[in-house]
Amino acid sequence: MNADSWGGRLYVALMHYPVLDKNGETIASAVTNLDLHDIARVCRTYGTAGYFVITPLEDQRVLVQQILDHWLTGKGGIYNPHRRKALELVRLKSDFAGVMAEIAAVHGRPPRIVVTTAKQKNGAITCKSLREMIRRGPDPVVLMLGTAWGLTSAVMEAADHILEPLTGVRGYNHLSVRSAAAILLDRLLGTDR
Amino acid sequence: MNADSWGGRLYVALMHYPVLDKNGETIASAVTNLDLHDIARVCRTYGTAGYFVITPLEDQRVLVQQILDHWLTGKGGIYNPHRRKALELVRLKSDFAGVMAEIAAVHGRPPRIVVTTAKQKNGAITCKSLREMIRRGPDPVVLMLGTAWGLTSAVMEAADHILEPLTGVRGYNHLSVRSAAAILLDRLLGTDR
Repeated sequence: MNADSWGGRLYVALMHYPVLDKNGETIASAVTNLDLHDIARVCRTYGTAGYFVITPLEDQRVLVQQILDHWLTGKGGIYNPHRRKALELVRLKSDFAGVMAEIAAVHGRPPRIVVTTAKQKNGAITCKSLREMIRRGPDPVVLMLGTAWGLTSAVMEAADHILEPLTGVRGYNHLSVRSAAAILLDRLLGTDR
Repeated sequence: MNADSWGGRLYVALMHYPVLDKNGETIASAVTNLDLHDIARVCRTYGTAGYFVITPLEDQRVLVQQILDHWLTGKGGIYNPHRRKALELVRLKSDFAGVMAEIAAVHGRPPRIVVTTAKQKNGAITCKSLREMIRRGPDPVVLMLGTAWGLTSAVMEAADHILEPLTGVRGYNHLSVRSAAAILLDRLLGTDR
């Protein structure tokens, strides 16, 4: 089985709630247009099964749906079919329970939940071991990415695994969630490893 | 010598001219705010020597300088010092000759020019061999990234090396330049290889 097939077991979930603000308070963050595009394009390039965008805010879901409609059924998809092909992977959800339910319905079993963080945590697993977990199966895996200042500790504690942070060379690792998603999918599903 | 030091020989250059539009015509593209932030943050995380942003359009350079001033000397840097630390790497130039001159002045020798493309090209080098070239030295290396629909063939032909494209698992590899930069720097300078 090659990476073409493993990707069918991996889902990405971009969380806009519950996430932390600069002061460590729990908030619902705003959806960023380029998070939709960039991460969908990476997900399509590496063959992931789906890209969930989670926000409990109805006005934000309406906005995201308008963007998706433009690219999936409107003029955007005619202007740039590659972009349509990427955004077809996006599934809009109001909460993470909806993500779990959809994945379980597709695969007949719930996914393993893997959370990402920029901080060092005890017991974190490496990208290599997560790659092997996805490759081996049979469980689907959902990789949770936090927006704003990251996922809450309650979300982290409820996960099955914490993924090691992407570390820089001089202790600086303040990547955008778009960049982190790109690097992680290359490490987890890239063929040139 | 570890990746902490190799990075000091690698520069990233984001080209807004000359690049191609959707129809293959040569244009000057507009600068995107998140290209500045995302790629600067990746460059700082992986320890590159500098991040050149090239546009011949004076109004675009004025705009970029205003953004940089906000983060380097204005309120942005107080609000988020990590962002200031990243954007300190940005050097604004009107053309690529200015990039070559600055790198040559710092290193006492001109850089090797490596161009990136999403297309398969004869004689392209792998990320692994470019990583080794940077590690070994002594020449500095400038990695040219194209905006819009990519670098022109004249730019490609004038380069010392063409880097292999980041290939997807099913022939789809339409990544944003932000995602491509993140993946390439992780492959070229990342420590978890």
